[in-house]
Amino acid sequence: MLLVLEFLGVAAFAVSGALAAVRARLDLFGVVVLGMVTALGGGVIRDLMLDVHPPTTLQDWRYLLVSGAAGLLAFQFHPQLARLRRAVLLADAVGLGLFVTSGTATALALGAPVYTSCLIGLITGIGGGILRDLLLREVPLVLRREIYAVAALVGTVVVGAGEMLGLPAGPVALIGSTLVVGLRVLALWRRWNAPLPKDPTH
Amino acid sequence: MLLVLEFLGVAAFAVSGALAAVRARLDLFGVVVLGMVTALGGGVIRDLMLDVHPPTTLQDWRYLLVSGAAGLLAFQFHPQLARLRRAVLLADAVGLGLFVTSGTATALALGAPVYTSCLIGLITGIGGGILRDLLLREVPLVLRREIYAVAALVGTVVVGAGEMLGLPAGPVALIGSTLVVGLRVLALWRRWNAPLPKDPTH
Amino acid sequence: MLLVLEFLGVAAFAVSGALAAVRARLDLFGVVVLGMVTALGGGVIRDLMLDVHPPTTLQDWRYLLVSGAAGLLAFQFHPQLARLRRAVLLADAVGLGLFVTSGTATALALGAPVYTSCLIGLITGIGGGILRDLLLREVPLVLRREIYAVAALVGTVVVGAGEMLGLPAGPVALIGSTLVVGLRVLALWRRWNAPLPKDPTH
Repeated sequence: MLLVLEFLGVAAFAVSGALAAVRARLDLFGVVVLGMVTALGGGVIRDLMLDVHPPTTLQDWRYLLVSGAAGLLAFQFHPQLARLRRAVLLADAVGLGLFVTSGTATALALGAPVYTSCLIGLITGIGGGILRDLLLREVPLVLRREIYAVAALVGTVVVGAGEMLGLPAGPVALIGSTLVVGLRVLALWRRWNAPLPKDPTH
Repeated sequence: MLLVLEFLGVAAFAVSGALAAVRARLDLFGVVVLGMVTALGGGVIRDLMLDVHPPTTLQDWRYLLVSGAAGLLAFQFHPQLARLRRAVLLADAVGLGLFVTSGTATALALGAPVYTSCLIGLITGIGGGILRDLLLREVPLVLRREIYAVAALVGTVVVGAGEMLGLPAGPVALIGSTLVVGLRVLALWRRWNAPLPKDPTH
Repeated sequence: MLLVLEFLGVAAFAVSGALAAVRARLDLFGVVVLGMVTALGGGVIRDLMLDVHPPTTLQDWRYLLVSGAAGLLAFQFHPQLARLRRAVLLADAVGLGLFVTSGTATALALGAPVYTSCLIGLITGIGGGILRDLLLREVPLVLRREIYAVAALVGTVVVGAGEMLGLPAGPVALIGSTLVVGLRVLALWRRWNAPLPKDPTH
């Protein structure tokens, strides 16, 4: 069940990367690469920081298969996918929740301090999207919009707090992931944004 | 012989980075740095993923010397180099072939699974060029044009397949590199490109 | 004393990242993240290359606190900070000097060759600023202007030369850092720049 959800998240991240690449008019190879980078990049950064070599997401052929196939499908069927925008955003929220909580849990399990683990969990969740935007020459969306990162932050803090309170890891991760998904859905629905700095020209 | 070819490839990669920096009007330091990042960046990413510390390309002074000197020469003689465009592209193809096959072989020798090794070989070959384009604020060329990445993919798959079939590594790497160079020359000559996605506006 | 200077440098780097994010109209989260990435990014890259896991700057809560607080303050008080431009540039020079020399010394202490250590020290000093500019979609300032990188280079070479001559590390690092600060101040005051390539259109 959890594994199915995780691959759903990987596929959603890959679709988001591939669709961004289609909009930027990359070729077939570029679209698939962008999909795979978006889906697997956060996990690669996490493993580099935690000294897991080679990175897990490059070692498990199922991650490569799911993300590569999702990128290919997005290349072929992007006009249809545009109509599925809500479903893709929901699956992306599920992926974010699972990546953030599992990234935090992995760092904790490898003995990193709680706040370091929270940072690494955050990077696991948003790193792939940041790499996607960097490769497409855009200021990362996550730094600009719709409390995407705030939702991720809440998820990782829940897992970190659970660890400090000695609560069982499984249910805490479930609560953290659910909160991330709920916050993302609320933010998209109510068009919430984080506060902007005062305009220097006023 | 192989070593001479490898340094030829390093120099060609450095020249490609330095010339791009000259076009972007960077200063002397920026031109040399771009050359070195382009020439050594793929190897650094490979070593980070394979837990080789510090990265080999930063440990061998000959890599630093060849790439730094090539960047300096490109800074000084870039008008002349523009006339050598074909020679530079050919040397770049040789570098790509050698980086891809040696990156794949290094990962295999360190015990990574075959498909992980192929991915790492691919990243070794195209990573430097991607860093160059990121630093110059361009969508990476390799994701957009002239089956550069497809040639690299063919080279790494040949080495991976050779490993699975138990063939001797040396000749297989030679065949893989030659295929990369041949595909690049053909692609440049015939102006081959990978397929683009359907235009969403039609 | 040295620790106070180091946190001053971390705060200055964070302010420079946060102010750049304010100018790019990022939201609160983006401003704080840019500040932290600028302040801690160089150290993270250094630790990835030297196999220190997880990166020190993510393990020490004081770095996180100082850089995060500096980013928050810059978000709130950026109009006032604009008037403190010279003080921020001076603190940034101090941070650069300390990061470069301590990065070089760390690499030497972990057994890397002298020229590799110099490269890693250089990357420690300028890596955070490069990440800041990449995330904001700008060609890295350090590759374009005001001999920022040349000052860093001088600092790291002093530490490397001191090691080769067997001089005591502490005073050498102090001299190196002071040189970096002095060169930066001179470059800003006299508007020094590194040479540009010949204009290809003339």
